Amino acid sequence: MATETHFQKELEELKENLLKMAALVEEAINNAVRSLVKRDFELAQKAFEAEDKINTMDIDINTECLNLLALRQPMAVDLRFITSALKIITDLERMGDQAINIAERAVSLNQEPQIKPYIDIPAMAKITQSMVKDVLNAFVNRDSKLARSVCEKDDLVDGLNDQVVRELLTHMMSDPKTIKRAVQLMIVCRCLERIADHATNIAEDVIFMVDALVIKHHADTKGEKDQAG
Amino acid sequence: MATETHFQKELEELKENLLKMAALVEEAINNAVRSLVKRDFELAQKAFEAEDKINTMDIDINTECLNLLALRQPMAVDLRFITSALKIITDLERMGDQAINIAERAVSLNQEPQIKPYIDIPAMAKITQSMVKDVLNAFVNRDSKLARSVCEKDDLVDGLNDQVVRELLTHMMSDPKTIKRAVQLMIVCRCLERIADHATNIAEDVIFMVDALVIKHHADTKGEKDQAG
Repeated sequence: MATETHFQKELEELKENLLKMAALVEEAINNAVRSLVKRDFELAQKAFEAEDKINTMDIDINTECLNLLALRQPMAVDLRFITSALKIITDLERMGDQAINIAERAVSLNQEPQIKPYIDIPAMAKITQSMVKDVLNAFVNRDSKLARSVCEKDDLVDGLNDQVVRELLTHMMSDPKTIKRAVQLMIVCRCLERIADHATNIAEDVIFMVDALVIKHHADTKGEKDQAG
Repeated sequence: MATETHFQKELEELKENLLKMAALVEEAINNAVRSLVKRDFELAQKAFEAEDKINTMDIDINTECLNLLALRQPMAVDLRFITSALKIITDLERMGDQAINIAERAVSLNQEPQIKPYIDIPAMAKITQSMVKDVLNAFVNRDSKLARSVCEKDDLVDGLNDQVVRELLTHMMSDPKTIKRAVQLMIVCRCLERIADHATNIAEDVIFMVDALVIKHHADTKGEKDQAG
């Protein structure tokens, strides 16, 4: 019984650490996109500084999960929770990389005149951040309804992305001087879209974990088709 | 002893399945890129058909790993091998998605005149395929030297990608009618680059597993910087 309680405490710690790691990623996305919108180098710098912290948490939580698997030899629900956590930290770490990539584009774009006012990009970023937050809460609270809402938001992000890409293509065609900057902005959008994809991947795992349903690959196929549109 | 032997046999099966899944992904990349280069719809179709097989293997191997963890309660090296396998199949499945994405672009691009001869893209694809093959072999044989060679190849892919992007930008600026096709080709390159990134992520895990070294995040940082170049 004492061991059981101790194990539950360790699982709680794992949950807290996952939420902390997600909060760091969210903040990095926020700083990266604000550095673009506000043309502020300091905010990009803050995003760069988050990288080490996120990477350290990735390594620490990975070790924490391996220790739990080795020492507690969990079964069924707990086993699935810990192996999912292992995959989730990989997703979070890669979302962090995307935030850094956005901050790098921001630094480069902010040295040149702005092609167009940024409206859809901050909107995409806001949805994407909420997806990161919601999906981690869905995971730690085994809330498949919340996880499903994350999958739905992915369509909004894809829709905004298509819109921005269409607009940027128009700019590029009417004024070839904007091409390089427009391509950079397209990369920013793709980074946000990839963060949303990672969140959706986690959401699908949560739904699988909670409902033991394999909706993942149907959604994947759909996602790829949307991207192609 | 009998159980131990049985467990070793299960691990061998797991290794074989991982190699089979990697071979499917390799073939999907090959078909997708050849469908672009040869302007052949049938080859794109073959890539699309691989998706279901890859997704089924993802689900089956995931279950296989969870069963091994639950029933065999492996320790140390075996534990790390199985948890790494769990992450690797996620990477393989996403590489498969990228191959599908390339095949979709190919179908679209092949309906219009070709902007330029494709030389660097097949070269990128060839290296990328070899990375997928090598990294899985490195994993199942615990060969960190081979894994390191995969990380090195990632730089070649990034270099070719930069070259293609520069060329395409020139085309776009001199002839705005090529912009839409050029953007599609850039996406093909990014898909290949992402496949290479996934292979590199696995390679870093292999090195970590074998040498218990954390080179991952140094390489990540470098990768992101290269991308920004």
